[in-house]
Amino acid sequence: MNRTEALDSLREFLKERGISAMIIPTNDPHFGEYTQAHYKVREWLSGFTGSAGTLVVTETDAALWTDSRYFVQAARELSGSGICLMKMKMEGTPSIAGWIREQYPSGARVGIDGALFSYADYLQLKKDLAPLTVESIPDPFDRIWKERPPLAFRPVTVLPQEYSGESAASKFERVKQALCMGDRRFVYIVTACDEVAWLCNIRGTDIEYNPLPQSYAVITNQAVHLFADLQALDEETQRYLRSQGIEIHPYDSFTERLGEFPSDTLRVCSAARITVRDYNALNIQGAVFTDDPLAGGTVARLKAIKNECEAEGFRKAFLTDGIAWCKLLKYIDDSLREGRELDEYALGEKLIAFRKECPLYRGESFEPIVAFGPAAALPHYSATETSSQKIGTDNFLLMDTGGHYLFGTTDTTRTIPVGKLTEEQKINYTLVLKGMIALSMAAFPKGTRGASLDVLARGPLYTRGLMYFHGTGHGIGHYLCVHEGPQSIRMEENPVPLEPGMVLSNEPAVYMEGKYGIRTENVLMVREWKTTPVNEFYRFETLTLVPIATECIAKGILAEEEIVWLNGYNAQVYEKISPFLDPEEKQWLGKACRPCLI
Amino acid sequence: MNRTEALDSLREFLKERGISAMIIPTNDPHFGEYTQAHYKVREWLSGFTGSAGTLVVTETDAALWTDSRYFVQAARELSGSGICLMKMKMEGTPSIAGWIREQYPSGARVGIDGALFSYADYLQLKKDLAPLTVESIPDPFDRIWKERPPLAFRPVTVLPQEYSGESAASKFERVKQALCMGDRRFVYIVTACDEVAWLCNIRGTDIEYNPLPQSYAVITNQAVHLFADLQALDEETQRYLRSQGIEIHPYDSFTERLGEFPSDTLRVCSAARITVRDYNALNIQGAVFTDDPLAGGTVARLKAIKNECEAEGFRKAFLTDGIAWCKLLKYIDDSLREGRELDEYALGEKLIAFRKECPLYRGESFEPIVAFGPAAALPHYSATETSSQKIGTDNFLLMDTGGHYLFGTTDTTRTIPVGKLTEEQKINYTLVLKGMIALSMAAFPKGTRGASLDVLARGPLYTRGLMYFHGTGHGIGHYLCVHEGPQSIRMEENPVPLEPGMVLSNEPAVYMEGKYGIRTENVLMVREWKTTPVNEFYRFETLTLVPIATECIAKGILAEEEIVWLNGYNAQVYEKISPFLDPEEKQWLGKACRPCLI
Repeated sequence: MNRTEALDSLREFLKERGISAMIIPTNDPHFGEYTQAHYKVREWLSGFTGSAGTLVVTETDAALWTDSRYFVQAARELSGSGICLMKMKMEGTPSIAGWIREQYPSGARVGIDGALFSYADYLQLKKDLAPLTVESIPDPFDRIWKERPPLAFRPVTVLPQEYSGESAASKFERVKQALCMGDRRFVYIVTACDEVAWLCNIRGTDIEYNPLPQSYAVITNQAVHLFADLQALDEETQRYLRSQGIEIHPYDSFTERLGEFPSDTLRVCSAARITVRDYNALNIQGAVFTDDPLAGGTVARLKAIKNECEAEGFRKAFLTDGIAWCKLLKYIDDSLREGRELDEYALGEKLIAFRKECPLYRGESFEPIVAFGPAAALPHYSATETSSQKIGTDNFLLMDTGGHYLFGTTDTTRTIPVGKLTEEQKINYTLVLKGMIALSMAAFPKGTRGASLDVLARGPLYTRGLMYFHGTGHGIGHYLCVHEGPQSIRMEENPVPLEPGMVLSNEPAVYMEGKYGIRTENVLMVREWKTTPVNEFYRFETLTLVPIATECIAKGILAEEEIVWLNGYNAQVYEKISPFLDPEEKQWLGKACRPCLI
Repeated sequence: MNRTEALDSLREFLKERGISAMIIPTNDPHFGEYTQAHYKVREWLSGFTGSAGTLVVTETDAALWTDSRYFVQAARELSGSGICLMKMKMEGTPSIAGWIREQYPSGARVGIDGALFSYADYLQLKKDLAPLTVESIPDPFDRIWKERPPLAFRPVTVLPQEYSGESAASKFERVKQALCMGDRRFVYIVTACDEVAWLCNIRGTDIEYNPLPQSYAVITNQAVHLFADLQALDEETQRYLRSQGIEIHPYDSFTERLGEFPSDTLRVCSAARITVRDYNALNIQGAVFTDDPLAGGTVARLKAIKNECEAEGFRKAFLTDGIAWCKLLKYIDDSLREGRELDEYALGEKLIAFRKECPLYRGESFEPIVAFGPAAALPHYSATETSSQKIGTDNFLLMDTGGHYLFGTTDTTRTIPVGKLTEEQKINYTLVLKGMIALSMAAFPKGTRGASLDVLARGPLYTRGLMYFHGTGHGIGHYLCVHEGPQSIRMEENPVPLEPGMVLSNEPAVYMEGKYGIRTENVLMVREWKTTPVNEFYRFETLTLVPIATECIAKGILAEEEIVWLNGYNAQVYEKISPFLDPEEKQWLGKACRPCLI
């Protein structure tokens, strides 16, 4: 079936139901970063393969909204489809609601698939589209997408307590405590697969780069109810789950089960994290809803605070990963010296090979980014086997990759000089490093939010009129998603305070379009530091153990205490990593970690 | 009438109306920082004179909620009154609603004076008090408070355009433009006296320390309607106002007039800034309300962005004020050297006397704080003629004062060493200074909020486990309120971005209970700096011109660029102030502004 036929069959489906327009987002009922092929409806209909975009199909027209990262790609992929590209945040681009209202000024019925919209988005859409009506309709694609991939469910494994540090039964008790419901009967809805995985101490491979089973959970006063594919749970796994008081239900029975709770059972959920379909199922006559009492979500908040076992696992993961990185960096150094040709994709594969030396390695935590020169200035650049560049000279090589280990998840970016650099390149490298160090060194009182610290990483760039448009730090899960909420360090307000045990990235950057990109990323864990008469204070522990290049630092930009920090950091990398290296590697690392005198 | 009689007569009034409890806040219908004596009902009933507190009177009981600043004072002033002191934010203290609900578990009618509660607070209260009902009742105190001071209205003056830089007619046009209402009929309600004063280019003396007439304004598509005391407007003032298209109405007719707008006129107001009384007046059948479209309020936002004439006025105000400060600092220095006794209150008066040398001085912008030693660690300490301490030795003297001039408003804090200091004192002085300098030096892109920059001022203190619990910076009005919104630099989120022309204080501090307090405050103006390929960037211009003491700086804490900033600052103070001093003063200033070599 080609695009036109696909669009036509959708229009026919809508016409039968009297729907004038349908909005098709990029989403699934779990609101995760990656969706299974089954849910890639927008991609199938439009041909646009980017990770973010919304397609709208009306009786006579179709348009796709996406952000600046994807303008070039979307224009190419939509070419000839008759679908109009709508460049978000550009002057003159109508809003989705505005565009639909213009075509149907006197009103019409607009359809959405209630399984792909959060209830909060639905309410907003209703407001924006008025006087048009918004209707949740059943998924049309099961019928019209002939070759639609089925939902995939692969075997679920239990994460042993030696890695999780806490039983599922204990997590259930702590969640109940945090909810402060007392004797009040409640039902707490968990739609995010990583929250379910944390809660039940299970892992899977249903989702790209995220070690998760596709599943839901419902927490009540009595038990955790897990909704997962029964075939994917072997007997041992089922035995563990039952031993923890977890009741197991088929994945498909989730929505139906939501309608069976008595109306006097308080529904605890966040409108932004439940689908319209599931909200409607819960919403029987007389039902009372309440928001998740903790900003960012109670389960998400507990998950974000790593216990000592998880913290120790993270240290081990960054040590293991650091060994692989050091081997890679030496390999690059040797190759360049010996004039051997290198290419981006192969370097990513090489690092994976080094990671695989650890038997508990469980795959990459996201698609590796290895980018030389101008490519590093492209957001979301990723070399593939067939589109990979050779590593040239006189520019930066940027590498951003991470791995999953049974004991933790990593995410590291290093930018290294190849050949000669200009003074501007050195200055910008140093400004990025200065910001990374300033955030690493920060002390802050209990209650501080990530948004309060963000400027420490950006400030040095600001003084030269430079900035980056992404966040400074995202949360990182423990052998879970490499991008984890609710904690963050961003310019944007986020009410979640940084708490001891939270793990976050620290990745200031600068992108010079058409020239080069620089990003330096360490991962930090919030730790208790000291209690004084005025407050409790926290500091970060740096987890990452990969040498930071010092030969391209410009003079006069780092303050003395920053140079002390940097030399101390590299010395620590040598101290921790070198015992695991052979003599030649060790010698190389010694050189890479030499104190710099600026 | 004593307190008991006062409480009894209130209870009688309530009983007549079947009301079980009444909540009496500290407020007036304009939501300003200071209220006229007429509105000091809580003070009259309870005897508690602090600036913040809420009294609740039930049929049999009474209690007063206040914050930690006032625990000692409130306990003293409430002693013997039968009114229970409720210490806010302390463990075990019930909420106001909780305390009332406990007394009336089966429901009751709770009264409030609708002129003293914002509509937003009323909605919250209703929610918190349910199932009890909340009723807006007419002010009982006109009847029962026999010696109640009447509302005072003093002559209103026009602020000439040579100081305001913009006609009232032009401001009206700009407000309309910012509201983007097109042809839609609207009514925009202005309850804050400083917004009215800015909008109409008028000033007054009705309110302590704030140069404001007590007044309201209502903006419609056609005109600005000013509600002010007609006796207070002389002919010339009325002529100016009319020439600007402003229609004049009696102050007392405001609420009544609100009810006369047709229901199809869109009501634009913020629920947090309109009283229940006035909201109810607007809320006729079929009326449609909308929030103020700009965060912080449209008029407040325009007022906060100073035009070039106001900016020039601010520079002149800080120059004029700097001359007075330099004379004071020299006087203190001379007195200490010559062994003359000094006291706190007299120093405040001395500074006022120096300020009065400028004929356009219009009074203090807030109650002067002059505090020696441990007193400086008390929040809101203020010496009076009868309770003033002598200036001792071997400690800090903290002075925080500001003045109004026709051309601008000032606010400056300096902490100076008297005698010998300990190393800890010097270190803490230097940490505060380091934070003040870091914020002064900041560069930041368009769209940055004050909350994003706050950590620059706090960070150095955090590294030693120290912090202060107030904001870092408040907005400052142009010959208006010294505490002006909506701009701020605080830990707490505030969605208002910092825009060129906004004026803010920069006042990090440290308070060592029972020992000393340190605060160093400059005032900054946001200025355009440069536009680069990625964004527009801003920097601060420092307005304050008072030397910063360098003899008590600890070694090894300030970075080189901070020392360069400090020496540059003091050099600039000398350059700008010295032409206005006599030879002896000039010599003193030269010494005070010498570069420090740390």
